[in-house]
Amino acid sequence: MEKLFIIKIGGNVIDEPDQLDWFLNDFSNIKEKKILVHGGGKVATAIGRNLGIASKYIDGRRITDDETIDLVTMVYGGLVNKQIVAKLQSINCNAIGITGADANLLPAKKRPVKEIDYGWVGDLNTDDIKSEMWELFLQNGLTPVVAPLTHDSNGHILNTNADTIASVIAVSLSASYNVNLVFCFEKNGVLENVNNEDSVISKLTFNDYLSLKNSNKLFAGILPKIDNAFDAINKGVKQVVIGNSSQLSCLINGTGGTKISLQ
Amino acid sequence: MEKLFIIKIGGNVIDEPDQLDWFLNDFSNIKEKKILVHGGGKVATAIGRNLGIASKYIDGRRITDDETIDLVTMVYGGLVNKQIVAKLQSINCNAIGITGADANLLPAKKRPVKEIDYGWVGDLNTDDIKSEMWELFLQNGLTPVVAPLTHDSNGHILNTNADTIASVIAVSLSASYNVNLVFCFEKNGVLENVNNEDSVISKLTFNDYLSLKNSNKLFAGILPKIDNAFDAINKGVKQVVIGNSSQLSCLINGTGGTKISLQ
Repeated sequence: MEKLFIIKIGGNVIDEPDQLDWFLNDFSNIKEKKILVHGGGKVATAIGRNLGIASKYIDGRRITDDETIDLVTMVYGGLVNKQIVAKLQSINCNAIGITGADANLLPAKKRPVKEIDYGWVGDLNTDDIKSEMWELFLQNGLTPVVAPLTHDSNGHILNTNADTIASVIAVSLSASYNVNLVFCFEKNGVLENVNNEDSVISKLTFNDYLSLKNSNKLFAGILPKIDNAFDAINKGVKQVVIGNSSQLSCLINGTGGTKISLQ
Repeated sequence: MEKLFIIKIGGNVIDEPDQLDWFLNDFSNIKEKKILVHGGGKVATAIGRNLGIASKYIDGRRITDDETIDLVTMVYGGLVNKQIVAKLQSINCNAIGITGADANLLPAKKRPVKEIDYGWVGDLNTDDIKSEMWELFLQNGLTPVVAPLTHDSNGHILNTNADTIASVIAVSLSASYNVNLVFCFEKNGVLENVNNEDSVISKLTFNDYLSLKNSNKLFAGILPKIDNAFDAINKGVKQVVIGNSSQLSCLINGTGGTKISLQ
């Protein structure tokens, strides 16, 4: 099967124009088929503050109310997404910026209200993703650039976690491609010692992960990312790597970051 | 050749949620292939005001400076565009929201600085538009929803007149489709008496137009729209109609609005 890279970047890159330029240059140099999934960044919070839209939390969980969904639709789906697309177009990468509403690429369900009403937040199910349209784009030389937004098929945009979007697309396209999923963040990989950037675990098996987790050695924030990664591997994604967005070429060629491995 | 409708709507519809819903319902009922081009609306001005971004003019001409291009990229390319796409997706229309940067659909040139520096404003040339990608989308059941934004191929988004975008796409796709271009606005068509909505000229030839223009009977604001319309007809667009966005089905089936005709 043909190789397909799905790369996820978060706010740390998006908020730094120089870092973003570097990253996009590296990204455009990937010769194989590729998809970029981007998170939000602090720019939405900053613009929201200027508009008088405060970030809302219930029990520490972020809530997406009416004005917040409009804000993130503007900022993630418009400003961040189109700036990335325009930049990629200038460096020989035929990017197409999309949200999950476009071409019905990511139909989702509004998260059911239980203890907390998260508001306009979407949950994805791999079975709902139709891979044909993704394949149409990829087969015609397009590089999808995906904003962290889905839709509920009832006319509403939904705020959706970018790591989850990347995983779900990866799993969904694994039937047709040899998918390499790369989660970029601000650290060099999964670190054995969270204070030492040189302690990158180059290969992490599920057993390693369990014992590291049980000994409380891992930074708590990375656990959902690793869970996501093992989930993707279990569902057919060929390879998952976690590492620093400034080292994309190493993450791609297998010489950097942490490779997630079943055994 | 197969029929293709290209419909342009302006701020008057976009700013009124109920009118927009009605319009989008009518639009989704068009059975033939179709493209929607939307303008901006007052929402950008309102959000800009809240962000402290004033509209700028030199000699009465609107200027797109750095903060204004970011504003319209967010509002037109994000908020307005994705809300329309999500709504269309809910009523059985497989919409894909795009700017001219996406898939390089509308490469433009930054307007040269002469007497006035318009800032980040793009001018389009029909010859630069590659129709293959538009056709790929149309042939695969997608309905492009186009925000009034292009790009300069050097990494910048450009603010671009939505009427012009609609005309340029119409001309460019006339080689492959029987294109019907519909300019929607707040009046029922070209009016013989600007104060009487019932005085719609149902068919306007170029000679009619010249004599009406010479007798100063036409509302000045409509002249660029009519010039655009004749230009499109001259360059191969099959039919151009100007009329009220609330009467879309009549504009489509030929029973409403003003038909622009060479003779």
